Amino acid sequence: MAEKRLRPRAIPAILRPRNDPTDATRLAQSTVTTSGVMSTEDVVCWLERRRLAGKSCVLRIPLAELVGWRFDESTGNLEHSSGRFFSVEGYRVSVEGEVSEQWLQPILNQPEIAVLGLLVQEFNGILHVLMQAKMEPGNCNLIQLSPTVQATRSNYLKVHGGAAVRYLEYFTSQDRGRVIVDILQSEQGTWFDRKVNRNIIVEAKGDVPVHEDFCWLTFGQLGQLLQHDNIVNMDARTVLSCMPMSETGSAALHSDVELLAWFTGVRCRYAVRAERIPLSAVPHWTRDEVAIRHIEGRHFAVVAVSVNAESRETASWTQPLLEPCGEGIACFLTREFDGVPHYLVHASIEGGFVNAIELAPTVQCTSSDYKDPAARDRIPFLDAVLSANPKCIQYQAVQSEEGGRFLNAQTRYMVIGVTGREAPTVPPPDYFWVTRDQLTSLVKHSSYINIQARTLLACLNAMANSGV
Amino acid sequence: MAEKRLRPRAIPAILRPRNDPTDATRLAQSTVTTSGVMSTEDVVCWLERRRLAGKSCVLRIPLAELVGWRFDESTGNLEHSSGRFFSVEGYRVSVEGEVSEQWLQPILNQPEIAVLGLLVQEFNGILHVLMQAKMEPGNCNLIQLSPTVQATRSNYLKVHGGAAVRYLEYFTSQDRGRVIVDILQSEQGTWFDRKVNRNIIVEAKGDVPVHEDFCWLTFGQLGQLLQHDNIVNMDARTVLSCMPMSETGSAALHSDVELLAWFTGVRCRYAVRAERIPLSAVPHWTRDEVAIRHIEGRHFAVVAVSVNAESRETASWTQPLLEPCGEGIACFLTREFDGVPHYLVHASIEGGFVNAIELAPTVQCTSSDYKDPAARDRIPFLDAVLSANPKCIQYQAVQSEEGGRFLNAQTRYMVIGVTGREAPTVPPPDYFWVTRDQLTSLVKHSSYINIQARTLLACLNAMANSGV
Repeated sequence: MAEKRLRPRAIPAILRPRNDPTDATRLAQSTVTTSGVMSTEDVVCWLERRRLAGKSCVLRIPLAELVGWRFDESTGNLEHSSGRFFSVEGYRVSVEGEVSEQWLQPILNQPEIAVLGLLVQEFNGILHVLMQAKMEPGNCNLIQLSPTVQATRSNYLKVHGGAAVRYLEYFTSQDRGRVIVDILQSEQGTWFDRKVNRNIIVEAKGDVPVHEDFCWLTFGQLGQLLQHDNIVNMDARTVLSCMPMSETGSAALHSDVELLAWFTGVRCRYAVRAERIPLSAVPHWTRDEVAIRHIEGRHFAVVAVSVNAESRETASWTQPLLEPCGEGIACFLTREFDGVPHYLVHASIEGGFVNAIELAPTVQCTSSDYKDPAARDRIPFLDAVLSANPKCIQYQAVQSEEGGRFLNAQTRYMVIGVTGREAPTVPPPDYFWVTRDQLTSLVKHSSYINIQARTLLACLNAMANSGV
Repeated sequence: MAEKRLRPRAIPAILRPRNDPTDATRLAQSTVTTSGVMSTEDVVCWLERRRLAGKSCVLRIPLAELVGWRFDESTGNLEHSSGRFFSVEGYRVSVEGEVSEQWLQPILNQPEIAVLGLLVQEFNGILHVLMQAKMEPGNCNLIQLSPTVQATRSNYLKVHGGAAVRYLEYFTSQDRGRVIVDILQSEQGTWFDRKVNRNIIVEAKGDVPVHEDFCWLTFGQLGQLLQHDNIVNMDARTVLSCMPMSETGSAALHSDVELLAWFTGVRCRYAVRAERIPLSAVPHWTRDEVAIRHIEGRHFAVVAVSVNAESRETASWTQPLLEPCGEGIACFLTREFDGVPHYLVHASIEGGFVNAIELAPTVQCTSSDYKDPAARDRIPFLDAVLSANPKCIQYQAVQSEEGGRFLNAQTRYMVIGVTGREAPTVPPPDYFWVTRDQLTSLVKHSSYINIQARTLLACLNAMANSGV
């Protein structure tokens, strides 16, 4: 008894390390594991079977046949009758800097923050992620792998009168899981007004029932599937890019202080203002029976589709989709300095970003841009991309942008190894060489890395861990 | 010769560590040094002498006597005839969340990003910072210590026809110095529409001529002066808060992942929209001969002053100033957990923030708020501040907000030690316990820490290093 009393009273150790590497280590283990509950080939077949089982059908329809949507008489905006969902409005962007510029365009306005949630759980000591075979009307192949939950507030409040969103409770209640990452990230700043979504990874507690549209994969399998065209959807890619990674600890061409100071400098060089205006006040864009489009057929069109699907929350509906004119390119040029790979980021102005400027791939453009003969001179580094030696292409796949808003929006994602001849050590002012570690530390915060660069980061992370 | 050839060709070591602790170490050394070129007491006397030498005089004048300013006939906005400088406009803020709210108010619109620059240089192995005795018409004592450079674009483009801004070249050219930090930070979100300024610290190369309005101080001396009322101005305090600090490496109640996830959660709980509207469309505010004011005398007024000064870029001018109704409070409650001090931050909605929500002190309110008898119930933790035992007050001083825009805007800054009785370990949802290290790592990025919390962080940093 006396002995017991002499023992100092245990101080409750309620503190924890600020940065526990355990999750990063476990995720890295999963990333090098390519055998899962189902083989990766079988995942592709399973997706195909879900595609057939879904019996989905998407048809283009005239704008007038949209149900529950209307053009506002005074503004010309295309809106949902519930006032929720999203709307197509006009947008005025002005940039003041070395050169002053202003343009008007249609824009998607969707003020709601969606949940993009990956549910993970350990099986046989390896983290697996629950992926969904999800039909989205804008995908060329309709069904792709999406996060466990991909739902706007309208979705889960059932504004469209649909079914409950499966597994949502893991992301809305703290009792069902443990948060590994939860961060707001931007979406396409040229198509959306200030759109951000919540990128979440949660480790589930307890048994998770698996619905037939879902399957458990290792992160290594997702990495393999990212090498294929149009399998891993945009929402899955952005959450993957936010996955905590063990940093390599490598040095860099520029310190983090220099990187942030350069970025501040760019943000101060341009004063960007963007505001929504009535769609009818946007010149050079017209509306005919089937589309809102640019009079020269450039940029994109807004069209309407009718959807019949058995596997979605609601079985059939109509909706507008934004259809870009041709395939996009998003490419990182990469060079090794002292043996450490660096990627050339571009501080890019997109009118719809909350902070006007984010870090984008070295080259990011649409086909109408790069097919213009003058573009090779106008867009820095485009020539290096278009004339790259195939042997120098470290990554290449065509991926879809969000199929719930965009129709056939496909982007050729590339990582191309170059030399100082194509990309100098001291690049133009709005470009900067960064390491993967530096991208990883910036993606922990909002408003740094744009969605195209995040897709490439997800691919880089997958390749680095798998040793591809 | 043969030997020489065998030696491997040296690979140019162009990489550098991402995080070099040298600057933080040197700044910490300066922070513990309280003897400088001039004793700290002499700095106070020198400021007094500059005050007398400046022969400045600020007089309240009727709004109609503003020169170069006019009320726009259609909007009622108060604008400068150059279209630059700043304007007083109307503002509509709507918040949707658990409770929906909307309010209208006047707001300052100043789209320009100002440079707030501290120039540092080593003397006898200790970093010193070049501070300016700067007259600002809104300061109760007119002259306070400001950063080396504190200049809007209008200032240095000489829109008001003034003299050149001294030392600006160190912050605009890379040849004159080396950047230690350069980051955009927000200013008062209740008074400004989306205002951010550039917080820069540069180490000067070569001899720096010292003008009579300037003097070199150690960071330790600045820390001593922060213990006094109204000596270190707001712009100096915000740059000081961004100073790179050596982290203590202490554990925390919550990991960084939990902190960021909590912040994301708060940002998702509230949908905030803010837009400028015509000032004449703001109800409950009136304009008489001398002020734009709230009909119940609450919040603030916009008044006009005429300034005669010999020490500023222009010798005399008139301008509007925002005058708050009474003194503000900005207070961190602090508790030790397992011996590590934690500070209770409040994720606060201010309509003018670019990202709507930033981390603020535990209590931040104006006197018209806290003098309301119902306020003690309405404002969480206000009672703990107002009834604090004087022995528990770790820091207290009255400091001025930016005297170039605000008249007699004084805030009582406090840090108060409390127990679990006043501030529980699990606080209300919009509050969170963080360590100083965590504040230090967040202030490296924009849009996390509001300007009042940054003043307190500057004080905490000064106290921690000096062992006060």
